[in-house]
Amino acid sequence: MIVSTLGSHSALQILHGAKKEGFPTTIITENSRENFYRRFSFIDNFRVYKNLDDAVNLINSVDGVLIPHGSLVEYLGIQRTMNISIPIFGNRNLFSWESNQQKKMYLLKQSGIRIPESFESPEDIDRLVIIKLPGAKGGKGYFLAKDKSKAKEGINHLIEEKYIKSSDDVIIQEYVTGIPMYFQFFYSPIFSRNELTGMDIRYETNVDGLKRVPGIINTEPSFVVAGNIPVVARESLLPKIFDYADRFVETTRQLVKPGIVGPYSLETIVTDELDIVVFEFSGRIVAGTNLYVDGSPYSWLYWDEPMSVGRRISREIKIAVQKNKLGDVTT
Amino acid sequence: MIVSTLGSHSALQILHGAKKEGFPTTIITENSRENFYRRFSFIDNFRVYKNLDDAVNLINSVDGVLIPHGSLVEYLGIQRTMNISIPIFGNRNLFSWESNQQKKMYLLKQSGIRIPESFESPEDIDRLVIIKLPGAKGGKGYFLAKDKSKAKEGINHLIEEKYIKSSDDVIIQEYVTGIPMYFQFFYSPIFSRNELTGMDIRYETNVDGLKRVPGIINTEPSFVVAGNIPVVARESLLPKIFDYADRFVETTRQLVKPGIVGPYSLETIVTDELDIVVFEFSGRIVAGTNLYVDGSPYSWLYWDEPMSVGRRISREIKIAVQKNKLGDVTT
Amino acid sequence: MIVSTLGSHSALQILHGAKKEGFPTTIITENSRENFYRRFSFIDNFRVYKNLDDAVNLINSVDGVLIPHGSLVEYLGIQRTMNISIPIFGNRNLFSWESNQQKKMYLLKQSGIRIPESFESPEDIDRLVIIKLPGAKGGKGYFLAKDKSKAKEGINHLIEEKYIKSSDDVIIQEYVTGIPMYFQFFYSPIFSRNELTGMDIRYETNVDGLKRVPGIINTEPSFVVAGNIPVVARESLLPKIFDYADRFVETTRQLVKPGIVGPYSLETIVTDELDIVVFEFSGRIVAGTNLYVDGSPYSWLYWDEPMSVGRRISREIKIAVQKNKLGDVTT
Repeated sequence: MIVSTLGSHSALQILHGAKKEGFPTTIITENSRENFYRRFSFIDNFRVYKNLDDAVNLINSVDGVLIPHGSLVEYLGIQRTMNISIPIFGNRNLFSWESNQQKKMYLLKQSGIRIPESFESPEDIDRLVIIKLPGAKGGKGYFLAKDKSKAKEGINHLIEEKYIKSSDDVIIQEYVTGIPMYFQFFYSPIFSRNELTGMDIRYETNVDGLKRVPGIINTEPSFVVAGNIPVVARESLLPKIFDYADRFVETTRQLVKPGIVGPYSLETIVTDELDIVVFEFSGRIVAGTNLYVDGSPYSWLYWDEPMSVGRRISREIKIAVQKNKLGDVTT
Repeated sequence: MIVSTLGSHSALQILHGAKKEGFPTTIITENSRENFYRRFSFIDNFRVYKNLDDAVNLINSVDGVLIPHGSLVEYLGIQRTMNISIPIFGNRNLFSWESNQQKKMYLLKQSGIRIPESFESPEDIDRLVIIKLPGAKGGKGYFLAKDKSKAKEGINHLIEEKYIKSSDDVIIQEYVTGIPMYFQFFYSPIFSRNELTGMDIRYETNVDGLKRVPGIINTEPSFVVAGNIPVVARESLLPKIFDYADRFVETTRQLVKPGIVGPYSLETIVTDELDIVVFEFSGRIVAGTNLYVDGSPYSWLYWDEPMSVGRRISREIKIAVQKNKLGDVTT
Repeated sequence: MIVSTLGSHSALQILHGAKKEGFPTTIITENSRENFYRRFSFIDNFRVYKNLDDAVNLINSVDGVLIPHGSLVEYLGIQRTMNISIPIFGNRNLFSWESNQQKKMYLLKQSGIRIPESFESPEDIDRLVIIKLPGAKGGKGYFLAKDKSKAKEGINHLIEEKYIKSSDDVIIQEYVTGIPMYFQFFYSPIFSRNELTGMDIRYETNVDGLKRVPGIINTEPSFVVAGNIPVVARESLLPKIFDYADRFVETTRQLVKPGIVGPYSLETIVTDELDIVVFEFSGRIVAGTNLYVDGSPYSWLYWDEPMSVGRRISREIKIAVQKNKLGDVTT
């Protein structure tokens, strides 16, 4: 059985981990990136596409399991993704929930997790807000607005630039004061447990550059994710985030069967009261896990060998196959 | 012999490391955290308390060595800590010195280490200062003041909020301009040497969030430590910090017998003249070491195996037992 | 054959890696740092100098290969460096190119790499610029200027302080808005390939401290590098930076024979369009690699063992010796 993935996001980590677990590996990649991926010896097979419709056909031609990542739906679009016919690791039913911000926040809210106040219309804004484009756009187009007039101005700009069609397309959230922390989890149906696989902070352009020269450059900050920085949390924060994680998995098992399987992340702000506010989740492997190709400060608490999330996925598949339970970890 | 610790701070790292060195492990934990700690297979025994007096009794019921960490005195208070009757790794005589900021700074000063100017009374303030609450409070209540009137205002606020009783209870330090660097050391009586075990930067809420949006949010920054980020220093800074470390250990051997044993940290600002100013120390394992469960960029210079500080402690105990010198590393 | 280096910068990593590859190691160190380096057991031999002319003689007395690093030319000066008569790992012909900022930028430009606009004279400045001192000074003296009058003011200050003789001695570059990312590469003549060995962000005093207290301290930021923080990049940035790296190596093979050999770095700003602008390169091992003594998130994609850049250098030497090709990796 082959482990395959689309050439972007965390493909190196995923296929490196698959090879470590003994699987043959296949990458489905745009032709412009073929040379890049050929630099790495753990990738066995190349399926090279020129356009996105070909990509789906190539994905479907692989005899194995596709590992989805944060760029899969973003690249292919939700329609093409629906045409994937080979088994996908994890829960493909989450894709449509994830493409709808209201439904995403509903899953968090139903789990009893503290989330930021959200505003349906710019008219309702009564505090500092962050305005986001839907989908996994890597922070592109995000902006801050101090009040409703600034918010409308920015939204009109996004409409003019054709990023969105109307103000209904954006997410307007209270800007919670605190520090961002991204908790990376893995829910294992095989072990029936939540594992904390790592944590990171996003490194965003240009906001993380502008902050070094306050008052010198008069530019609105942008929030485009260009990388990730490792971090660990106070140990006393961990019981709360694990409670969140357990309840979140349980909610998805009720509402989006079979529920979360494998990697996901809870994207939070930690306030100075040490409260944790979850403003977003990702239902699959996040790019912040690329920090931990040789294991994270948390993965070593579970495993006596280097365990990236990419490898963890293939380990779950391997054990599932051995136990004749592949259906429990794929959809 | 069992290795035990209180369930918080760096307990996971400490017990993970103890298990790696072959010791049975016991956690003494508040009942609300029991489920959390049960997620980790390297913890053998659980002693669960509902109130802090029970905690001390449970600690004393363990047949082995207690590893203290930064939350031990903070949770139990200095009085209860004094009632611990089983051997404590390291020097318990430091506890009372650490609870008195004047005595702490005196140890640094006596070691010929550059420290920030401190002000006994808000009346004396003549520059930007940082005002701190005593004890290991994780940065809670810290604030900056540009002048004496701002300082008094903030101190009165702390008195009103019942954090302190009078201005005598705060530490007023010159705010040294530069960057924070936390140097983690381990003094080994068995090897008679100082080891640099790692370095970190604290990740503080909300100051590390506010800096991303300067001028947009008009909130006074707070300095509550929520996590830690890894860092390495220019190699040319290391001879100076090792000199500091050697002299500091020597001073404690003179003044607080038997002196520093095991992990400690020197908490510094590095100026743009590359001078190192130590504004604080911790006499035991700090949470920043949680970054290095699989070893740090510095630990690998000493050890050919993954050596967290938690594991390093148990290694020291193990060798001490073998050499019949347990008394050299416990008090 | 002995592997030797000068005692500073990344000497610990270089000699630690050499020892792992089975070489005897020698450090050439200033007498004030001898005690520091004696703390590490992987350093076999010490050659201790009191003045820099002695340093060159001591370097030349070692029967083996010298590993140069970012402090070699800075400490010895270009003249003394020219007097080194033992084999140097990498391309010594790059030293003179690197001491001339115009020639450095020319190599990048010739490679078709996007670089910041540069200004020959302060008179030409029409935007925010960063003004730099020539050579590897670790950021000392760098400053930002909003316009030509601020630029002249700062340059005059540098002349008064005798850092430079005239405005011809500084580099004036457009300040590109975005985030810094330092890509660490290794070009292997033995394997004929570019390896990405890691990435980092510089931790600079006092700018990275000032940003935490915007509006409170009215000090011009300084940019003295005191440490490094780990980071990974979005995977989709990697094909572009590898293209840059391939073309850069090719340019050096044409213009500075035998071209880049071993470690180098491309020092970049990533804009919010996810474009990569290279504002500087280093032709040898950079201090940011000190983060990865046990391997980086990228080195593990090539090697199944911990591979620091220091160790990678000695691995290249070892294989070169085995293949009777030492001349391919030394000059």
